[in-house]
Amino acid sequence: MTTPLMNQLGVVKRNIVRAERATVDLLGTLGSATVHEAMGRVGLLKPYMRPIWSGAQVSGSAVTLLLHPGDNWMMHVVAEQIQPGDIVVAAISAECTDGYFGDLLATSFMARGAHALVIDAGVRDVRILKEMGFPVWSKCISAKGTIKATLGSVNIPVLCAGALVNPGDVIVADDDGVAVVPVADAARVAQVAQQREGLEEEKRAKLAAGVLGLDMYAMRGPLEQAGLRYID
Amino acid sequence: MTTPLMNQLGVVKRNIVRAERATVDLLGTLGSATVHEAMGRVGLLKPYMRPIWSGAQVSGSAVTLLLHPGDNWMMHVVAEQIQPGDIVVAAISAECTDGYFGDLLATSFMARGAHALVIDAGVRDVRILKEMGFPVWSKCISAKGTIKATLGSVNIPVLCAGALVNPGDVIVADDDGVAVVPVADAARVAQVAQQREGLEEEKRAKLAAGVLGLDMYAMRGPLEQAGLRYID
Amino acid sequence: MTTPLMNQLGVVKRNIVRAERATVDLLGTLGSATVHEAMGRVGLLKPYMRPIWSGAQVSGSAVTLLLHPGDNWMMHVVAEQIQPGDIVVAAISAECTDGYFGDLLATSFMARGAHALVIDAGVRDVRILKEMGFPVWSKCISAKGTIKATLGSVNIPVLCAGALVNPGDVIVADDDGVAVVPVADAARVAQVAQQREGLEEEKRAKLAAGVLGLDMYAMRGPLEQAGLRYID
Amino acid sequence: MTTPLMNQLGVVKRNIVRAERATVDLLGTLGSATVHEAMGRVGLLKPYMRPIWSGAQVSGSAVTLLLHPGDNWMMHVVAEQIQPGDIVVAAISAECTDGYFGDLLATSFMARGAHALVIDAGVRDVRILKEMGFPVWSKCISAKGTIKATLGSVNIPVLCAGALVNPGDVIVADDDGVAVVPVADAARVAQVAQQREGLEEEKRAKLAAGVLGLDMYAMRGPLEQAGLRYID
Amino acid sequence: MTTPLMNQLGVVKRNIVRAERATVDLLGTLGSATVHEAMGRVGLLKPYMRPIWSGAQVSGSAVTLLLHPGDNWMMHVVAEQIQPGDIVVAAISAECTDGYFGDLLATSFMARGAHALVIDAGVRDVRILKEMGFPVWSKCISAKGTIKATLGSVNIPVLCAGALVNPGDVIVADDDGVAVVPVADAARVAQVAQQREGLEEEKRAKLAAGVLGLDMYAMRGPLEQAGLRYID
Amino acid sequence: MTTPLMNQLGVVKRNIVRAERATVDLLGTLGSATVHEAMGRVGLLKPYMRPIWSGAQVSGSAVTLLLHPGDNWMMHVVAEQIQPGDIVVAAISAECTDGYFGDLLATSFMARGAHALVIDAGVRDVRILKEMGFPVWSKCISAKGTIKATLGSVNIPVLCAGALVNPGDVIVADDDGVAVVPVADAARVAQVAQQREGLEEEKRAKLAAGVLGLDMYAMRGPLEQAGLRYID
Repeated sequence: MTTPLMNQLGVVKRNIVRAERATVDLLGTLGSATVHEAMGRVGLLKPYMRPIWSGAQVSGSAVTLLLHPGDNWMMHVVAEQIQPGDIVVAAISAECTDGYFGDLLATSFMARGAHALVIDAGVRDVRILKEMGFPVWSKCISAKGTIKATLGSVNIPVLCAGALVNPGDVIVADDDGVAVVPVADAARVAQVAQQREGLEEEKRAKLAAGVLGLDMYAMRGPLEQAGLRYID
Repeated sequence: MTTPLMNQLGVVKRNIVRAERATVDLLGTLGSATVHEAMGRVGLLKPYMRPIWSGAQVSGSAVTLLLHPGDNWMMHVVAEQIQPGDIVVAAISAECTDGYFGDLLATSFMARGAHALVIDAGVRDVRILKEMGFPVWSKCISAKGTIKATLGSVNIPVLCAGALVNPGDVIVADDDGVAVVPVADAARVAQVAQQREGLEEEKRAKLAAGVLGLDMYAMRGPLEQAGLRYID
Repeated sequence: MTTPLMNQLGVVKRNIVRAERATVDLLGTLGSATVHEAMGRVGLLKPYMRPIWSGAQVSGSAVTLLLHPGDNWMMHVVAEQIQPGDIVVAAISAECTDGYFGDLLATSFMARGAHALVIDAGVRDVRILKEMGFPVWSKCISAKGTIKATLGSVNIPVLCAGALVNPGDVIVADDDGVAVVPVADAARVAQVAQQREGLEEEKRAKLAAGVLGLDMYAMRGPLEQAGLRYID
Repeated sequence: MTTPLMNQLGVVKRNIVRAERATVDLLGTLGSATVHEAMGRVGLLKPYMRPIWSGAQVSGSAVTLLLHPGDNWMMHVVAEQIQPGDIVVAAISAECTDGYFGDLLATSFMARGAHALVIDAGVRDVRILKEMGFPVWSKCISAKGTIKATLGSVNIPVLCAGALVNPGDVIVADDDGVAVVPVADAARVAQVAQQREGLEEEKRAKLAAGVLGLDMYAMRGPLEQAGLRYID
Repeated sequence: MTTPLMNQLGVVKRNIVRAERATVDLLGTLGSATVHEAMGRVGLLKPYMRPIWSGAQVSGSAVTLLLHPGDNWMMHVVAEQIQPGDIVVAAISAECTDGYFGDLLATSFMARGAHALVIDAGVRDVRILKEMGFPVWSKCISAKGTIKATLGSVNIPVLCAGALVNPGDVIVADDDGVAVVPVADAARVAQVAQQREGLEEEKRAKLAAGVLGLDMYAMRGPLEQAGLRYID
Repeated sequence: MTTPLMNQLGVVKRNIVRAERATVDLLGTLGSATVHEAMGRVGLLKPYMRPIWSGAQVSGSAVTLLLHPGDNWMMHVVAEQIQPGDIVVAAISAECTDGYFGDLLATSFMARGAHALVIDAGVRDVRILKEMGFPVWSKCISAKGTIKATLGSVNIPVLCAGALVNPGDVIVADDDGVAVVPVADAARVAQVAQQREGLEEEKRAKLAAGVLGLDMYAMRGPLEQAGLRYID
């Protein structure tokens, strides 16, 4: 488990293990909240990661990227490693709000089949990105440009917005946030999440009809036992 | 005034005094900015409280809720106390960004006639909440789920986003933020706010015609007296 | 360069030098990101400055304004100094989140021909401002009102959101942020930015066709020289 | 409970009910953590409130103060209401970081017998305040001065750093933070807190001798029941 | 590398691999800045992690701990796993500022031989902890207590303040921050760091004698080549 | 006033105008709060700038420095431009928390006669800096190192922590914060500040004797006129 991270600067790993496409797609339809619940309430990036435009719900295999502050050189390196259905997950080696990514790179990523970008920094050209329909989850939006001078790495484990992302992990992102599912767990999580989702329809109908969660979930007893008192 | 707050954990107060519906509705049409001005520029929640979707303008009687970090058990308890036209105001006993509320609870709240939720924490399923037309003002959006293990209280005074909210207070919320009007002041505040609003139409027409506020409000004299100097 | 700022409280400078309209308009069509790149990656306000509604892209000559916390008296003074095509840039002498500006002032600013407001504080009536089509870039949104008691200044150099803005500077604002171009540099920056923009169309077409930036920019050599290693 | 706060601007309440001196002193010796535990884990100001110098542990009766941003006029009004053993608790009607209080006011407060100042804003002259031995808990330190132009109020209920403070409430402050005990609860809380404290000595001795909390608190059973697994 | 984190809730791993004591001690004498440089400028926790008292410089083997918001039950579980020279590294599953740790737990940790605590949340009793000489690096200080109701895990990989910490990793902490060295790299990093340190003495003497870094590091040529211009 | 900042990258200005030593020293004895008051309550850096150790009170002529994120190459360039009594003021072209400065650079700066460093980023080796007695005001403390790859500039106008600093401006820094006095105003500000300080001694004595500010400043009339009401 103690991979010497220090040896991995300036490295591009070409072959990574991805989850099966059907699993990835299924996780995407279930959404970040349901998927993270199915994992036992873990696996979420911090909530400061927000979509630059609302309404997108996507999934894909993580192609990871470690960048340095103010330097987006490796964005062009990662583009070559993208396979259709991938999501690029970019971490920065120190806090940075610069705009690492704009419409030209998005054009290239889309041409490679990328589903989205997740980046713990800023992006720009956001009006055009929305028109192009390319979804991005980022820490901020900034017109500030970057240079191309320093090496980072592609497809090493990265820490992005408080979560560990290994190359190939399944990313599920929507308006609620971004979830990460380890490849080894993807199939099982998808199954659990789907079961969870299946139960929700019936509950929704009951609640809409006026049934209270107190009764539907049989909570009155446990609440009384915990000491809940009603007063007038 | 020194209500021993420490005695009020695990309590649900069923009967609360609400303002008259006509007053509540009138305050809602006037909006948070006008209402808070009519109160003497007080009564606002902090500006970090934002709508999860824009364009809604609502009012209602506060049904208050005190929750603990990461625990939304009392959301189901509060649902039963909602009357048509109420707004649930949820405070957390410590800072938390978890997603306490999603589409299932919103279905239940809507079935009870709730007008909105105001919560000093996170919510999720925000795309669906928007489709359902259920308005929420929150500190953040987060897919992170909660557990159901700890008692809180319903309809006790709570501190929510820097404001004291008593059960029954009138809540006015729109894209500008959230205002709280004590029940005892609601009628008077509505009257003052309405007068204030009435004067704005005429002003707006004058300003649109090119009249300067400097002249319309007769500010040139006071400004000169205060020492304002014009230079070229 | 050491203008004694301390002498400039309570001052309104009436005559300021503006850039040529054609230059200002051209910079506006190029957008904040391209303009700031053409200046050598300087001249941006901090990224916490966000549009209150998305999709607007404007430019104009800066009419600057120094306000005090919680006091918007000078908003009416600045209105008189607005010429068609100007953008008011408002700095506050200390951190403040109050709502300094609403629909009445926007009506007056629009009647004077203002293109936008940039303010390092809060604004309100944002739903109406959007309906009116008046763009604002601000630090936050807040229903909190202000008083009219203290003098500030108009058309002095101000520090707004981390940038120095002199009266007459060209402001370029869009969904990516806000850029400031000194009057003396406006023509040259417009020229450089336009050239830069011209080159982008061709690049976009190539990238859309699947050409990699690695090849288009001839980066493979420099990357190898910098030590980039590919592994499997 | 719905005191019309809007009627209370520009008011100084002279007579307030204070807790008994012995109770106040006892709470002070117990410290903020123990006192807040004895209240049921409520009653703390937010943790951003920090002492300007470390090592002080004080208690006193709250003399409350509502100030406006950038205006410390009422600091002189409140001075007259201080009785020996009081602690001034200052709230601001909007977020502000200015330095409201320095060595001159501290000299006056000390002459009146004040034990400390708690302020949800900034203070200055902090090196001298430390030399004088006057403790302050504040949001920040700032050299920025204030004006004297606007009325606030003295001895009304205030919201300070996320807590409701009524005049006369007992304030307990130390390096861990600031706790507020309602007058009506002071005697009982002191009793509970003292009992709690009494039990700690024995526990400390056991733990120092190497006894584990697991055994001292008999946690092994409940942990196993909750599903804790040990692996090698 | 894709350890299914979801399987590891409620788990205590008893046997972990620690680095050699001599290596751990040597890294401690070198300090966090030198150690992180020797690793290639990686391996630091975010700078918001600060010592609760200044002047301590320690190292130790990480015993890791995953806690839930507002719940410190596992603090007692981890105590049993501490061996002399260890440092407990506590991560929380969601953002929390509560005071998880005070003088009683510190007494227990010291009895077990712990060198320090690193926690991505709050601690309390800080004045006493300083008197006891027990060092803590934390996100904040808070008197707010926690409950004992939910299982976490001990000695699983954790993400603490933006860094991945595996059980057994070497922790180096001082007034500059906290560095993490993977066990597998500890010996080599110590060697590199020591060499680096050895060179500094000579440099320091030269610089103190007035030699400029420009000359000592032969920077004038590269700077000129990069285009640096001197003007008068 | 519209200096084309874009022309000033990679520039070192050698000759700058400094204020007279006696004036600089006098301003230093008066402190940041008094000096900023004498300027009309302007000229302060934002309050997030804090001393890395408390108790220092210094003044000096600003030698300004513009750095890029994560790059401290120009620190060595600026060292050569330091004259005895100078204070280096370092701005960063984008937000950064890295540790740009440690004990080696401090040794060099001290050998050149620098009085202090003011930097809108991080520093490290803070325990040693304190032992050396070299004062630093910074945004944060971080062990994170920087590279030496990119040109910045020396002695150009910079925006540091919200304030415009021109080379040669007088910097006054103490535990309350950092003030900047333009060279052209230094003599006059020193005179005004000294007068202000002179009046304080007498006031302090009166206040210590129990005289209220209400009476000493004759505030009772104005307060009554403003509408202050006393109730029992």
